[in-house]
Amino acid sequence: MSHFSSISGGVAAAKGFRQSALACGIKNPTATRLDLALIHSDFPCVSAGTFTTNRVQAAPVRLSKRALQNHDFQAIIANSGNANACTGTQGMSDAKAMCQAVAKKLNISASQVGLCSTGVIGLPLPMSRILPRLPELVESLAPERGDDVAAAIITSDTHPKQYAVEYAQEKHTIRIGGCVKGAGMISPCMATMLCFLTTDAKISRELLRKITLETVQTTFNRITIDGDMSTNDTVMVLANGAANAPEILAGSAEEQQFRSAFSAVLLHLAQAIVRDGERVTKFVTVSVRGARNAKDAQLACEAVCKSALVKSSWNGGDPNWGRILHAVGYSGARIREEKIDISLNGLLACSQGLQATTDMEQLRAVAALPEFQIEIHLNQGNFDYTMYSSDLSPEYVDFNRSEYAYWKQARKDGLV
Amino acid sequence: MSHFSSISGGVAAAKGFRQSALACGIKNPTATRLDLALIHSDFPCVSAGTFTTNRVQAAPVRLSKRALQNHDFQAIIANSGNANACTGTQGMSDAKAMCQAVAKKLNISASQVGLCSTGVIGLPLPMSRILPRLPELVESLAPERGDDVAAAIITSDTHPKQYAVEYAQEKHTIRIGGCVKGAGMISPCMATMLCFLTTDAKISRELLRKITLETVQTTFNRITIDGDMSTNDTVMVLANGAANAPEILAGSAEEQQFRSAFSAVLLHLAQAIVRDGERVTKFVTVSVRGARNAKDAQLACEAVCKSALVKSSWNGGDPNWGRILHAVGYSGARIREEKIDISLNGLLACSQGLQATTDMEQLRAVAALPEFQIEIHLNQGNFDYTMYSSDLSPEYVDFNRSEYAYWKQARKDGLV
Repeated sequence: MSHFSSISGGVAAAKGFRQSALACGIKNPTATRLDLALIHSDFPCVSAGTFTTNRVQAAPVRLSKRALQNHDFQAIIANSGNANACTGTQGMSDAKAMCQAVAKKLNISASQVGLCSTGVIGLPLPMSRILPRLPELVESLAPERGDDVAAAIITSDTHPKQYAVEYAQEKHTIRIGGCVKGAGMISPCMATMLCFLTTDAKISRELLRKITLETVQTTFNRITIDGDMSTNDTVMVLANGAANAPEILAGSAEEQQFRSAFSAVLLHLAQAIVRDGERVTKFVTVSVRGARNAKDAQLACEAVCKSALVKSSWNGGDPNWGRILHAVGYSGARIREEKIDISLNGLLACSQGLQATTDMEQLRAVAALPEFQIEIHLNQGNFDYTMYSSDLSPEYVDFNRSEYAYWKQARKDGLV
Repeated sequence: MSHFSSISGGVAAAKGFRQSALACGIKNPTATRLDLALIHSDFPCVSAGTFTTNRVQAAPVRLSKRALQNHDFQAIIANSGNANACTGTQGMSDAKAMCQAVAKKLNISASQVGLCSTGVIGLPLPMSRILPRLPELVESLAPERGDDVAAAIITSDTHPKQYAVEYAQEKHTIRIGGCVKGAGMISPCMATMLCFLTTDAKISRELLRKITLETVQTTFNRITIDGDMSTNDTVMVLANGAANAPEILAGSAEEQQFRSAFSAVLLHLAQAIVRDGERVTKFVTVSVRGARNAKDAQLACEAVCKSALVKSSWNGGDPNWGRILHAVGYSGARIREEKIDISLNGLLACSQGLQATTDMEQLRAVAALPEFQIEIHLNQGNFDYTMYSSDLSPEYVDFNRSEYAYWKQARKDGLV
């Protein structure tokens, strides 16, 4: 049994944070969907962030990365509906203007404001609809508005996604909570996703950043939906110490407690992204076991999780081990076909590279489930790797056929 | 103007070759579709072959690769409907039995018979339907049956694909012809494809093998449909010297003549595979220009051609340069976003990383065409790379949802 328990509130769960969200018409000028969000800590914070490794990076990613080098955020502002990516010098001016306006109103420096954008690429931000609303955004900050933040950052997600836990550090209660948006362009090394996390633990900047980087490796970097990596992926963490517990020191038992609760929050949110992926119908956990080394385990696992043919078969509820084996074969991992076992929820589908004797109807019953686990044993060594993946559906392709409507709107707005 | 001209006949175009094909019921026991083919040269040949780099290799791939190390093929036998892949020792025995039976009847050694299989993975070959028909297959060899061979090797292809050319080498006529099957699992480094080529040129084994390897690099290794690499991909070439022209010597003008005609045949066949890809509606030529080095050019080009999001936008006729830029960004190639230009059929869609001023309706008209060219200029150096790719359609996913029907048939046949 874990030492932590889940609580409600998302980014509002931790003490000393306030939130607000508005519908500015970025997603759609005539709609009332929330698309601008603010998170603010009443106290100075230490903060951490990880960002997309795509060489094409949105203006807010470049700005926030740079700010984090020498500063800590005390607030995060995020918009959905427009990624402010591939927008050149205009995009960078717009990003800076957003941070500056919010910072001024909050009476902090612009470098203390983390900025994220998500949505369509290549179109300028509709600043005329954003800037006039920033004072209202700051004025409406209030506790318990985590739900609104979670709702304001989603794009093609079908629902808001948030999670929080609490646990006891001696006689104090520590809370860690967050929200994510995902949907498409989801691949390891950060996806088209935003994740905001708040905690009232007291921790040094160095330790928070170390734990964040390491935890992202085993959570957000283990998910894939369509194998595409976006220009805007960002995880931001704010820790404000408002729980009034003693500082969590590196190497202490308290660090282990914090790590395990923090990791549970990130894993829950990462998996929630896959479950709510664009037109996803299956959540599949793929584990490669017995690889010769860590790299081989990762290569084999990623090849299976990204194969269009494997993912199509999952969509069809087909326990197709041949396609899994062929993806392992081209992954670059050193394997011997005749040593490989593949099972679905523990039922052997492939034994030593050949069709196992398991009843096919039993295997089909597993593959028909909305969630199942695939274990691929290479029987070559002792290294494992696990990822969380989805099927590829005809509806995913249909959904992503055209972004022309966004361009039409931008033309109507006089932006292009 | 090229020195060669296209002629009919496919693998039957070159002199001194005979062909045959039968419907054995491998694809479907009750159907009459051709699924077993034989190509035979009346004279000893030199031969070349290239094979999948997938570490999971079908029995016929392993057998033919081994045979080619010390021998030349004088005949090629191929079946469709079953890949004889992931079939273990039984698969290797079956493969050997096919070669031996055909070789005996042809009065050549088993090592002189190239063997290929394509179709479903993981199910044993229905040898009881194949072996009894092999004598008939040999007896029905005749000239001019290239069409039947082209028809017998296809699986999910919508039509047979063949091509041939002839040109004058002094006063002699040289012919080079071939056929291919493709459809799914198509990715560089050999796809789920078979290609058989025949020529009546006289050439040494060494030179033929060198030219084959080099030409495959710029033709079959430049196509992608779904990014999946199969277990059975094979190109086989037979040259029998029956044109009675002088031997083509390395470094001669005749070598250049042969190379350029040979390359035209392979490029035509490779492109035909993409055009006939599973549920493909678009043929897109993608060229990356101005990369810092050859590897960067290739990485950027492959990332664009394999991106599910880019390919979905092609399906929708959306001239979406933002997704192209984002794929270039995560490709691993060293790029600077603000230097990149992207054009469709010469119309600038993205200029220096930003939306170009070109009229969107003009760009949409290009993206609505069944075939168009995308040029991505990185403006970083002098290296280029071109690939031939397709869209990703909802129908592709739907088509690949399940292979259960094959398993049901195999169960009916008592094979599993």
